[in-house]
Amino acid sequence: MSKPLGFLGPEGTYTEQAALNYNSDAKLVSYPSIPAVASAVESGEVDEGVVPIENSLEGAVTYTLDLLIHDSALSIRKELVLPIEHCLIVRPGTKIEDVELVYSHPQALAQCRTFLAERFQDASVMASLSTAASVQEMQKSDVVAAAIANRRAATLNEAHILVEGIQDDGSNQTRFVVLAPTDHNPTGSDKTSMCFDFEGDAPGILYTVLGEFAHRGINLTKIESRPTRDNLGRYIFLVDVEGHRDEETMKEALDAVRGQVSMFKMFGSYPRHVSSAV
Amino acid sequence: MSKPLGFLGPEGTYTEQAALNYNSDAKLVSYPSIPAVASAVESGEVDEGVVPIENSLEGAVTYTLDLLIHDSALSIRKELVLPIEHCLIVRPGTKIEDVELVYSHPQALAQCRTFLAERFQDASVMASLSTAASVQEMQKSDVVAAAIANRRAATLNEAHILVEGIQDDGSNQTRFVVLAPTDHNPTGSDKTSMCFDFEGDAPGILYTVLGEFAHRGINLTKIESRPTRDNLGRYIFLVDVEGHRDEETMKEALDAVRGQVSMFKMFGSYPRHVSSAV
Repeated sequence: MSKPLGFLGPEGTYTEQAALNYNSDAKLVSYPSIPAVASAVESGEVDEGVVPIENSLEGAVTYTLDLLIHDSALSIRKELVLPIEHCLIVRPGTKIEDVELVYSHPQALAQCRTFLAERFQDASVMASLSTAASVQEMQKSDVVAAAIANRRAATLNEAHILVEGIQDDGSNQTRFVVLAPTDHNPTGSDKTSMCFDFEGDAPGILYTVLGEFAHRGINLTKIESRPTRDNLGRYIFLVDVEGHRDEETMKEALDAVRGQVSMFKMFGSYPRHVSSAV
Repeated sequence: MSKPLGFLGPEGTYTEQAALNYNSDAKLVSYPSIPAVASAVESGEVDEGVVPIENSLEGAVTYTLDLLIHDSALSIRKELVLPIEHCLIVRPGTKIEDVELVYSHPQALAQCRTFLAERFQDASVMASLSTAASVQEMQKSDVVAAAIANRRAATLNEAHILVEGIQDDGSNQTRFVVLAPTDHNPTGSDKTSMCFDFEGDAPGILYTVLGEFAHRGINLTKIESRPTRDNLGRYIFLVDVEGHRDEETMKEALDAVRGQVSMFKMFGSYPRHVSSAV
């Protein structure tokens, strides 16, 4: 039997769905915040924890990045990519033309703006703390209401799905990571994530650092910069490269990078998500 | 007299405050979405429009980036940086110990998590569509309530500020940009923003492109990657560099970059925000 798996709750969110896709046998434990998921993994309460890292509906991305940079020694063991499929959810028997009020998380409402403008010109919108919570609020509503959430939130709350795939952009996806005390063994198709920064802002430093990968034929798949907490003029760079940190060439590149930066933190190596790469 | 200035509304949000700081003489016009601000500038309804671009409370950053990349020919004329100062706002006469319910945008609630946990162990939280809207919902509440928003939202609604600076991280800032038909003349301390992508994913291309700046002593101040809409394995890179696109060295670098990428879009050159650099 698998050990418990933590996730950013509540039940019925896209993060829970990602956790289920990752390990449908595990006992899932919901936590109210990203730091709470990380603490539970650190204390051993759960083995692993699933949190969103990119393009999330919960607006949570920078929380996860900052946690990895500053507040946690956990590693990334896996990445999970989930298509965002918003559904229009109602109480059984509700007709779309009777809906007066639409509940959801503000970002989900924003992602369905075209659908809402076309179908609900006269309906009001109401914010919820999560897409999952919006289904419960819809059910308790005094007026005829709908909620925008995923399929699972409808099932969990025994509600009815009126329309599927109502988001404006059909290719919307969210990337999640599995946080764990250690990262993943090499699989032959891996990715390695890290962050670093450097003193001063000489034009060439980032360029030289990226050259350590480029010169060794290591592909850079993602680069981001985040302002440091203590110095607003300075950035921390987050970099994903193809390959595993146990591979010889990668080891050389990482050693060379470490020698040139003032701060370096390895987030880990893990299997690369293949069918897409958000 | 200045011409009208558009901004992402409603009134009382941090974006309105940024617009007021930028031009307190202008007639401000509120728009309900980032694309609506851009359309108003494109049609000439307003001269310029202020939208958040980084670390926003409204979760709007990727909307602005994607608008610049895909959907608009507007330029960045100015960047504005605003410290985020959340206030606990109540109806006049309300005591903090009587508050049963706290309203705000989910991201503002998340940014004040420590304060809320310490001072409101027994209070419930309720989501609003914007920090500004939370003040109005607080005022209409049946139970004793508080809202989390900025100072201006309190003033606009004749509400009372109980506690200032309640966000967890004291150095929280949001960066806004002024969108306009043209960018800014050189001032001697400028920044230039652009995006590009390239076919295939040979390890060296991004490195070579960044080298065009590095070799000419042009400092890179920010780099980000966004998944392209049509091809999930491909990224568009957004780059900010120091200097103006009218400067000779910059022109050379930009020409060299254009020759190596498959898509290139100039967002414009504009005065660099100096006292901080989120």
